[in-house]
Amino acid sequence: MIKTSLAECHSRIQPYIHKTAVISSRLINEMIGIDVVFKCENFQKMGAFKMRGATNAIMQLSETQKARGVVTHSSGNFAQALSLAASSLEIKAYIVMPNSAPEVKVDAVKGYGGIISFCEPTIKARVQASNQIIHETDATFIHPSNDMNVILGNGTACIELLEDHPELDVVFVPIGGGGLIAGTALAAHYYGNNCEVIGGEPFEVDDAYRSLQNGKIEYNKTTNTIADGLKTHLGDINFPIIQNHVNRIIRVEEFEIVSAMKLIYERLKIVIEPSSAVAFAALLKEKTAFKNKKVAVLISGGNVNLNQLPF
Amino acid sequence: MIKTSLAECHSRIQPYIHKTAVISSRLINEMIGIDVVFKCENFQKMGAFKMRGATNAIMQLSETQKARGVVTHSSGNFAQALSLAASSLEIKAYIVMPNSAPEVKVDAVKGYGGIISFCEPTIKARVQASNQIIHETDATFIHPSNDMNVILGNGTACIELLEDHPELDVVFVPIGGGGLIAGTALAAHYYGNNCEVIGGEPFEVDDAYRSLQNGKIEYNKTTNTIADGLKTHLGDINFPIIQNHVNRIIRVEEFEIVSAMKLIYERLKIVIEPSSAVAFAALLKEKTAFKNKKVAVLISGGNVNLNQLPF
Repeated sequence: MIKTSLAECHSRIQPYIHKTAVISSRLINEMIGIDVVFKCENFQKMGAFKMRGATNAIMQLSETQKARGVVTHSSGNFAQALSLAASSLEIKAYIVMPNSAPEVKVDAVKGYGGIISFCEPTIKARVQASNQIIHETDATFIHPSNDMNVILGNGTACIELLEDHPELDVVFVPIGGGGLIAGTALAAHYYGNNCEVIGGEPFEVDDAYRSLQNGKIEYNKTTNTIADGLKTHLGDINFPIIQNHVNRIIRVEEFEIVSAMKLIYERLKIVIEPSSAVAFAALLKEKTAFKNKKVAVLISGGNVNLNQLPF
Repeated sequence: MIKTSLAECHSRIQPYIHKTAVISSRLINEMIGIDVVFKCENFQKMGAFKMRGATNAIMQLSETQKARGVVTHSSGNFAQALSLAASSLEIKAYIVMPNSAPEVKVDAVKGYGGIISFCEPTIKARVQASNQIIHETDATFIHPSNDMNVILGNGTACIELLEDHPELDVVFVPIGGGGLIAGTALAAHYYGNNCEVIGGEPFEVDDAYRSLQNGKIEYNKTTNTIADGLKTHLGDINFPIIQNHVNRIIRVEEFEIVSAMKLIYERLKIVIEPSSAVAFAALLKEKTAFKNKKVAVLISGGNVNLNQLPF
């Protein structure tokens, strides 16, 4: 049934997303002694995989719901994804953003047609502002990662990856809110041939690692990581999927993230955001364990502030 | 006859090069009001189009010449390209580099198997050092841009581009030593359907612009440009081709190069070197002249010092 949902989801969103490239580097392969391919969701519309989940979630709404629009609170890629997906489908997207959000992100959401409400930069204020919009407009709230339609949509990147490389043994994915790794794990389970899914997570925000260890959703007390997309925690919908289908989470240090990121810029000649480098850093850290395996790394996005590159 | 040479060259080098991707950005198209595609030679082996010309030049040598090896003097992409092409074909490449060359470039040439001789950082010293090697080894000197086999090899990028987009009206190319634009102009002439070729050149090193104006090869007195690959001048082999087949050279300011470069990083999510941004900067500068045209920009390479990005 999940496999049918994934397949239906993929054909549903296909007209609205890019089938992104899968690339590799001979030099990286030689350097680490593993054949690794990179699925480039940095080339996805609006620059990240989140376009997939946002599009699917909106398309699954009833006509009445669509007429009323959608709401989310986010200062990152999901705000942009929901805005662009909504405007492609000609519906309204209300985006709650903290008044501390960088101008570049505010402009991006505006550029994609999102209707922005600002709030104080606290979780409480965000929820309040969203509830207020829902009260006024009857719009539907869509969570960035803890929503089954978002998870299924995100999983389509791995379906495409396995179409191109059916023989994959392992897919590395960054883990933040859990929406990408949960979708990837479902796709790998139903479309792969014993294909494992491994999460990469910064030590500084290792809530998902601890959640798997302790069997309950854990949170981060501090979020001192360059991987700004991975500061969030898991949710009750994606956590059971991750428990069932994710084989392992490998934690990495900040300097390992920066060094993996630089290697990708230098060798693959692509622009990625720090969160995307975390999955590759995890592979680099434990590379001896993956000798002779067919490995893929899912590059989650490329929306980075070029004035603040860590090199 | 040139068309046959181009076709033969392309099938000759194909096993040793990548057919690089051609990409586009809806946002860039909307922003400039032109449909433009980018041919990504930054994804070429060793990160630049120069792999094409270097490979062709080596493959055209006699067996005796191959046994003796090849020589060039360069501190840039051609040194790396010749080294890699030579090692792929199992022949020796002697590379003369100024002792002022950055360590990263020296290491890259070594990594590709080039045999380096250092010299003082003057043209005279480079020529002397090359001649010394030729005297000792009977190796064949291969010029980075003023060599017909190099020019034909470089032209294969535009052949591929026109295979994918036969309807192109204009191809923008950066102009430095003239080897890329001459090859592109030949390919556009013989494979295109009235496809124009336009050069982009920094005002700071506008020797090619002045050469076309004055009907003779001109030189630069200073080379204060960020486009480090474009500081060289035309040669007697590529200049007549450029005179016959290049429609126009558009000069751009340094800030326009940086701004075009940033736009490509932000929107296409690819890593390019400043020289590559010059062609796109030329299109941006005169964009009103290209409304309703099908336009391509040739991205020449992606070998950039990430610690010195201009943003």
